[in-house]
Amino acid sequence: MARLYHVPLSPYCRKVRLSLAEKKIECELVEERYWERDPDFLRRNPAGKVPVLRIDGKVMAESAPICEWLEDMYPEPSLLPLTPDERYEVRRLINWFDDKFHAEVTSKLLYERVNKKIMKKGYPDSSNVKAGAQAIKFHLDYMTWLLERRRWLAGDRMTLADFAAAAHLSCLDYISDVDWNRSDTVKDWYAKIKSRPAFRSILADQVPGFPPPSHYADLDF
Amino acid sequence: MARLYHVPLSPYCRKVRLSLAEKKIECELVEERYWERDPDFLRRNPAGKVPVLRIDGKVMAESAPICEWLEDMYPEPSLLPLTPDERYEVRRLINWFDDKFHAEVTSKLLYERVNKKIMKKGYPDSSNVKAGAQAIKFHLDYMTWLLERRRWLAGDRMTLADFAAAAHLSCLDYISDVDWNRSDTVKDWYAKIKSRPAFRSILADQVPGFPPPSHYADLDF
Repeated sequence: MARLYHVPLSPYCRKVRLSLAEKKIECELVEERYWERDPDFLRRNPAGKVPVLRIDGKVMAESAPICEWLEDMYPEPSLLPLTPDERYEVRRLINWFDDKFHAEVTSKLLYERVNKKIMKKGYPDSSNVKAGAQAIKFHLDYMTWLLERRRWLAGDRMTLADFAAAAHLSCLDYISDVDWNRSDTVKDWYAKIKSRPAFRSILADQVPGFPPPSHYADLDF
Repeated sequence: MARLYHVPLSPYCRKVRLSLAEKKIECELVEERYWERDPDFLRRNPAGKVPVLRIDGKVMAESAPICEWLEDMYPEPSLLPLTPDERYEVRRLINWFDDKFHAEVTSKLLYERVNKKIMKKGYPDSSNVKAGAQAIKFHLDYMTWLLERRRWLAGDRMTLADFAAAAHLSCLDYISDVDWNRSDTVKDWYAKIKSRPAFRSILADQVPGFPPPSHYADLDF
């Protein structure tokens, strides 16, 4: 069976988990406290980060290349469209969330509030938290703009771009940092993703010391 | 003709320039001082970053999706192998350089020494410069390790992974921050890339206030 080294509140790990689950690839989840830099783990991934996926005799790191490999090897159901222009748009949005959204929002809210405590790196920096809470509004508005023009973020079909976005938002929702009242459009989109069987394991995540709010796992939030 | 909005010492822009040139796609280069946030430019790319490529009636942002699109639309010569495992390795290494190397080296040396001055954001932070100068050694050693096992970084053919690495190293070489004496293996690899016709425009770059060292454009460095 495949095995994924992960942490529950990593948007990059969640994107891979969603992709695996959507493709019905059975996978054992192993929590890896990567910041403790266990030598065995560093052998698997010299970059010292999660996710790391062991599958079909291979060990792979980096969520974007892993998801592309899964598309190549397990093409059904497809999470990447067939035309170059549509593929570009999916990849652009994956980058938008994994790079820009991550820098402006996820790292400023989730990492300040949760990761710092778990990794024993001190207290949240309130100016970062404020900046993240401000920036997420702009991103929700951008998502609204996209979703008023398309059924899913990158076009008329659900793709890896939706999983990238939902991976970040679900981590932030776990710590009550998403204001779902800001946009019915985004809320409807998230409700569609949230109700997929692939999302179940993510809604069941529990991080000791950080109980999720009751709406987190509620499909009717 | 295609048009690339870029800055000369951006590794992401250089990766796209190398890919375009290798595929013999003629492209006009337009320097874009993206940090001045010109409204016309922000319309082209709401993320406000370079590179932005206008080609075949499309406007695209983000170097990795752009390079994938170029592979899809202009497959010859191919810079991405055909098997899923080989493609994974290329993408993993692109991420390695554009994410990890960028965070540990490029942002600490190039951005401190050059970008801060150009963007009028103060003086270099010497602790960052020191950390970057230390980290590049580890990365050169990792490249040596790879290149002792393979002709090119990701395998037996030149790929986008080599361009990603060469894009970062060439920017750092412009400010004399690469110690070529550390590894003959890496130096030989860089000499092979540097002598390609696709590299010529990069070797001709000039940034006002930052003259390159004489070895920068010398094929026999």
